[in-house]
Amino acid sequence: MAANNRHGFLAILLLSLLSLAPLRSRAQTTPTTPSSSFPVNVWPKPVSMSWAEPLMAMTFSPSFRIVVAPSSGEQNPYLVSAAQRYTALLFTERYRPIVRPAANVTAQTALESLTLAVSDPQAPLQDGVDESYALQIPLAGGAATLTASTAWGAMRGLETFSQLTWRAGSTKAEQLVVAAGVRVEDRPLYQHRGLMLDTGRTYFPVADILRTIDAMAGNKMNVFHWHITDSQSFPIELPSEPALAEKGAYGDDMRYTVEDVTRIVEFAMSRGVRVVPEIDAPGHTASWAGAYPEVVSCAGKFWLPDANDWGSRLAAEPGSGQLNPLKAKTFEVMANVINDVTSLFPDGFYHAGADEVTPGCWQADPSIQADIANGGTLSQLLEKYVRAVHPHVVSKNRTAVFWEDVLLDATVNVSASLIPPATTILQTWNNGSNNTKLIVQAGYRAIVSSASFYYLDCGHGDFVGNNAVYDDPRSDYDTNGGSWCGPFKTWQRVYDYDIAHGLTAEEAKLVIGGEVALWTEQADTTVLDARIWPRASAMAEALWSGNRDATGKKRYAEATDRLNDWRQRMVGRGVRAEPIQPLWCRTRPGMCDLVR
Amino acid sequence: MAANNRHGFLAILLLSLLSLAPLRSRAQTTPTTPSSSFPVNVWPKPVSMSWAEPLMAMTFSPSFRIVVAPSSGEQNPYLVSAAQRYTALLFTERYRPIVRPAANVTAQTALESLTLAVSDPQAPLQDGVDESYALQIPLAGGAATLTASTAWGAMRGLETFSQLTWRAGSTKAEQLVVAAGVRVEDRPLYQHRGLMLDTGRTYFPVADILRTIDAMAGNKMNVFHWHITDSQSFPIELPSEPALAEKGAYGDDMRYTVEDVTRIVEFAMSRGVRVVPEIDAPGHTASWAGAYPEVVSCAGKFWLPDANDWGSRLAAEPGSGQLNPLKAKTFEVMANVINDVTSLFPDGFYHAGADEVTPGCWQADPSIQADIANGGTLSQLLEKYVRAVHPHVVSKNRTAVFWEDVLLDATVNVSASLIPPATTILQTWNNGSNNTKLIVQAGYRAIVSSASFYYLDCGHGDFVGNNAVYDDPRSDYDTNGGSWCGPFKTWQRVYDYDIAHGLTAEEAKLVIGGEVALWTEQADTTVLDARIWPRASAMAEALWSGNRDATGKKRYAEATDRLNDWRQRMVGRGVRAEPIQPLWCRTRPGMCDLVR
Repeated sequence: MAANNRHGFLAILLLSLLSLAPLRSRAQTTPTTPSSSFPVNVWPKPVSMSWAEPLMAMTFSPSFRIVVAPSSGEQNPYLVSAAQRYTALLFTERYRPIVRPAANVTAQTALESLTLAVSDPQAPLQDGVDESYALQIPLAGGAATLTASTAWGAMRGLETFSQLTWRAGSTKAEQLVVAAGVRVEDRPLYQHRGLMLDTGRTYFPVADILRTIDAMAGNKMNVFHWHITDSQSFPIELPSEPALAEKGAYGDDMRYTVEDVTRIVEFAMSRGVRVVPEIDAPGHTASWAGAYPEVVSCAGKFWLPDANDWGSRLAAEPGSGQLNPLKAKTFEVMANVINDVTSLFPDGFYHAGADEVTPGCWQADPSIQADIANGGTLSQLLEKYVRAVHPHVVSKNRTAVFWEDVLLDATVNVSASLIPPATTILQTWNNGSNNTKLIVQAGYRAIVSSASFYYLDCGHGDFVGNNAVYDDPRSDYDTNGGSWCGPFKTWQRVYDYDIAHGLTAEEAKLVIGGEVALWTEQADTTVLDARIWPRASAMAEALWSGNRDATGKKRYAEATDRLNDWRQRMVGRGVRAEPIQPLWCRTRPGMCDLVR
Repeated sequence: MAANNRHGFLAILLLSLLSLAPLRSRAQTTPTTPSSSFPVNVWPKPVSMSWAEPLMAMTFSPSFRIVVAPSSGEQNPYLVSAAQRYTALLFTERYRPIVRPAANVTAQTALESLTLAVSDPQAPLQDGVDESYALQIPLAGGAATLTASTAWGAMRGLETFSQLTWRAGSTKAEQLVVAAGVRVEDRPLYQHRGLMLDTGRTYFPVADILRTIDAMAGNKMNVFHWHITDSQSFPIELPSEPALAEKGAYGDDMRYTVEDVTRIVEFAMSRGVRVVPEIDAPGHTASWAGAYPEVVSCAGKFWLPDANDWGSRLAAEPGSGQLNPLKAKTFEVMANVINDVTSLFPDGFYHAGADEVTPGCWQADPSIQADIANGGTLSQLLEKYVRAVHPHVVSKNRTAVFWEDVLLDATVNVSASLIPPATTILQTWNNGSNNTKLIVQAGYRAIVSSASFYYLDCGHGDFVGNNAVYDDPRSDYDTNGGSWCGPFKTWQRVYDYDIAHGLTAEEAKLVIGGEVALWTEQADTTVLDARIWPRASAMAEALWSGNRDATGKKRYAEATDRLNDWRQRMVGRGVRAEPIQPLWCRTRPGMCDLVR
């Protein structure tokens, strides 16, 4: 039970009796309203935070412990592991702020403990779970208290507590301190704060995924949307359909085994992060053709027969192949896939994909040509598919998530009656807030992943080769970074986006949250962290506590220094987040602004 | 003298007698003309390469050695260390091509040695040095031969040899092989193939710089342009001016000591890479104000008094400060700086900067205001500066390199008579090929670093905070990636650029080469490799052997697979180069193209 502590500071986690210390009198301090002046950064910024002025800090008692009530710990072992993990983090991360906070360190007294009180420790991690928490750190010594309805809220509070600590003093006489006289009351604006990672185009080692999920938890993000498969590869081993990975993965060493998946799900659960699996279909399934060539239309064909006619494409990008709903085998395989995936992933959401069904692919298939000749339409084909898949997903007690295309695609779409709003969520990516509005007006809950704001891959250039557009000697010729969704989405652009923009208050209630998305045509382990962080952090704060200050003004100016700090802390935690400014800026407040 | 060999394969480097094996009869092979079909990648592509068809490969004899003539080795110890280094690399890098070359491995005979013959081993590494080499690998057994005029050309040939090796066979029975029956004759199109790294805005550890230089050598690049100082920091310790780093570096642990510099220069020399130091002045010198506030105009002031009036700026970006040529102390300090830097850096070039002298900064200085009131002009101020600096640099037997601004800036510039073409080179960055033409038409040698093609930092967003431009909910609103030089320069755009575009043949002779540039407002050690590689590789090939095939057609389509391979090899060598395509593409030739 001893915490992992490689720096020799003795940190013992004692699971002692729950002892909720009475709130200390704060008469001697001057609590302030939340402002930008708090010298210790917490990211995402809490909804409400007050502290003593001038800022006080105290050291940790050698016997400091995070105290979890045995009854809570028994009912939710993740609480125990979280307390252990954060105890270890406190004493090992050695975060040295770029600008040391001007805080008076109380010499006499040290923090003795942080006690956790969770009223409903058995509450499962699921969509809409209560993540609120309240944290109180006394002005001197004694016990800090963290109260929350659920274990997951308690984890958010533990993260906040960890970010209120830093190494103070000179390098030679450093000591870990924590802000004192602090009170935080916090809860998310949006219940769904996610990151989508595509492991179909590029395989990522399990360690990359675990590190990413850990960083998500640090940002109080709670949904890892795992876009597992795509046309390029099928990297997950499914017990009922082993051939899919055997023939569809990039290689023997580039598959996720059942053990890998279990480990990822369990790891995420321990961080309060849900894992929503996506098996994209019926489009984006060329990789299924290795195992079942008979069910995949247009697989192996060149994706763009006529580069001057986008309508001629067989897929949105190289790697064409779509499941053929006219084949009974398609549904046999899909049923096995859904059964296996819902067995492996306990989450209440199942993402069924359905983006970018491409007319040209189905039109290139002889069996479908015959169907069309008999009066069939492509939308009817998709409806046939959804009519089978949606009820199956729902029968597994899952909410079906689809990309917006299933409803909004201009050419191939299904009737809303096949995807009832009660059991369906749509994820938007096109056309900014316009499509969000269409989705919620149709009565669906929406997850916002607007490519114009939340696609983290954009702006690194088109991966498609033999493209003459780049061969232009004009210096002012703008290739837009070459990717279809360029330019690059800067952290500011991510931060400033309001996912409920243009909606009425009633409509906005259907927006459950958002997800930044990393498609991986041009990302692998070498650049994973930098593509995601700290831009995902920008969304994390906007969806947790918003992007406005108390007066309603966008707070992007004030956020800059805080994001610099948080990025620095993330790097210290082993996440290779990219820098947003030169070091020079952080030490000269306001001097790197456009407007002072 | 035993090579570093952690895989147990005995590789002994013997410095035996120079034994130039006679060229073997090639009657039994069918040499081909260079084409895209060579199944083993060399990057940059050699000017001329022929090989046996079908491709043959052979293993290495356990006693394989790279043989350097003792006389050559004595005259140039870098040759010896290069031979050692490449011997070690051969047996440790374990490069497994994504697509194993279809080569017949000769079972009977193995390569016994690679002999180096260098006709002028004492030729110093300098601008225009002969880097040509010829490499011949026999069809079976015996000795491969590498001939070159200089040690630096021999290093290019060693690199080519290393890239002709790979691990063949199954994972369990892998063996190192080298392409057999190969003849390469190679030399660069341009003598100056550089990378500029800015360590003024962000400090990079010495290890980062060494790794970068090593990767440059792998790409046959030969000039590391070290933009050492800038307004944000002065990280180099100069013995005559210790206060500059003491007061101007980011911190005690963020300075380059004399030992660091010596190590970097020596390391680069061992790779055939020149180090051209740049101390940017008189602009970009805010960091000098820590030591000498009296010589720096406008230091510490906010950079942009009126965000709606770009003309009001005191600097091109946050961090304002310019040396004041009216102060005698300015020239005292500069003289010490030039003396120290030319002592530390043996290269024949000294880069004196002189970019972006900003009128508003000097105009904000009372002493300069008085001068202007007396009829002085800003250009006269710059001339006063250049009149002192240029002859001093030349007196140190150096060619002075300046950014183009010194001549071409519309507002503040100097008469060409002060910067004679015989002793001056101008580096262009604005206005694409137009400014290159202006430079060479004025009679100057040019180094091309067009921001529209060769700036590797562009497209990651503006680092300036409090910028309302990002706060726009329109999905189609194009912020151009936010940085002034966005969008991102893709490898294709880098590759396709002709640095002599629009020049006559006579004018083109004055273009000595190009440099990709990484300014580091938003790059530090977390992303260094990915920002540079493999995009710098694209320039490296374009400047080494061009970007066209034998018919004169741009070869960007064919280059894609090769760059995928080279990037893969670089990653194996410890360089975190970013991917350009999903793995799927490399294994399906042509399928990821826009046009088949």
